[in-house]
Amino acid sequence: MTYELYYWSGIQGRGEFVRLALEAAAAPYVDVARERGDAAIFALTGAVATPSFAPPFLRDGDTFVGQTALILDYLGPRLGLAPRDPRLRLWVRQIQLTIADCVTEAHDTHHPLGAELYYEDQQDESRRRAELFREHRVPRFLGWFETVLARNPAGGPWLAGRRPSYADLSLFQLVTGLDYAFPNLMRRHLPAYPGVAALAARVRALPNIASYLASDRRLPPNQSDIFRHYPELDERTSPLPRD
Amino acid sequence: MTYELYYWSGIQGRGEFVRLALEAAAAPYVDVARERGDAAIFALTGAVATPSFAPPFLRDGDTFVGQTALILDYLGPRLGLAPRDPRLRLWVRQIQLTIADCVTEAHDTHHPLGAELYYEDQQDESRRRAELFREHRVPRFLGWFETVLARNPAGGPWLAGRRPSYADLSLFQLVTGLDYAFPNLMRRHLPAYPGVAALAARVRALPNIASYLASDRRLPPNQSDIFRHYPELDERTSPLPRD
Repeated sequence: MTYELYYWSGIQGRGEFVRLALEAAAAPYVDVARERGDAAIFALTGAVATPSFAPPFLRDGDTFVGQTALILDYLGPRLGLAPRDPRLRLWVRQIQLTIADCVTEAHDTHHPLGAELYYEDQQDESRRRAELFREHRVPRFLGWFETVLARNPAGGPWLAGRRPSYADLSLFQLVTGLDYAFPNLMRRHLPAYPGVAALAARVRALPNIASYLASDRRLPPNQSDIFRHYPELDERTSPLPRD
Repeated sequence: MTYELYYWSGIQGRGEFVRLALEAAAAPYVDVARERGDAAIFALTGAVATPSFAPPFLRDGDTFVGQTALILDYLGPRLGLAPRDPRLRLWVRQIQLTIADCVTEAHDTHHPLGAELYYEDQQDESRRRAELFREHRVPRFLGWFETVLARNPAGGPWLAGRRPSYADLSLFQLVTGLDYAFPNLMRRHLPAYPGVAALAARVRALPNIASYLASDRRLPPNQSDIFRHYPELDERTSPLPRD
């Protein structure tokens, strides 16, 4: 059975969290919009009884699943990327939803007023939102992931249980995205979260993930994506000139 | 077995989506922070192996669940508030996550830069974000719910299946919150979404919900809550004076 992933063809975006799971498990899938164009996305939502609000969504035979965290929960047991223990599986789902919250906040650093306006039309607001994100939210999220890793009842080195789950793949993607968007911030502060840094490196080295990242299926980050690099939104490495 | 709900004591907030499910099913629960103070929230997260990032979270014996949508998915089958058909249950989960996205956006209308600043320190930005939310996002979300209601394979009148689910309760709460925050907008535009309006009325009339709403367990909306009424963020009923 071949999964069909529906997501915008030009960006990693939220679809990437799903791609990483499919790739890690070497699952057969079609990245529909890359093959048939983005119009295929709307063609599907217009036709089904359960039309997702927004991509990504997944088709598995006659089952349709939308919302990134839910797609991953659906795929997790099928791809061997979720713990079998129901309580741990519940925990992985909670972790994934928290990753999703952080992804939304990372997006909103360059679109604090709304996705309907260009970045250039909300640049001052972006500066202010990004500053709060860097100073308050990134430390809070990374600190939480560090705690989760330290408290893993199975002893680690993964977020939950003894084997990598889709949440581990997603945390890698989050760290990668933050590295791209906020290189100064992350270079200076990620070492304070050694568990998170080690986990990201461990995921990057998983054979199927390493192959995927080296392939042309992995799109490079770009300025239409969720994680964008605007130097003015990153931490400064030298102090501001005084007025 | 008595559920323990952990959520801030002074607001409806995200905890209210959980309360509505517990109340609709007349399930035994303790609203912990209202009985013991908000400090009880932190006392718990400091102690457990699976500490939620933020309230609300639920304790059921030695199971802990955080993230509103996940709590509801956990409670759903236990309270008779989720469809038995696995595909419909999956759909309800997707609907709930989309409601959660709308709730976050509603919150951000008064905190577009971040929760670390007071509303008064981001009032101009709030005006701009709220305008985009009213003009683009509210119609898109309400239109989607209307479509979902119209396409319910079971024929309605609920979002999914033949009986009310926790997602129906949550959509009621979302509509109630938008009514409070944006009364002009909703008075003028909700009639364009008759299915949504009828659903909210139907939920309000469920006997257990009606009793709850009339009780002192239902906190009134207030200006520390997710949904806040700032007249300057609502639609104007008369045209702006011309320059």
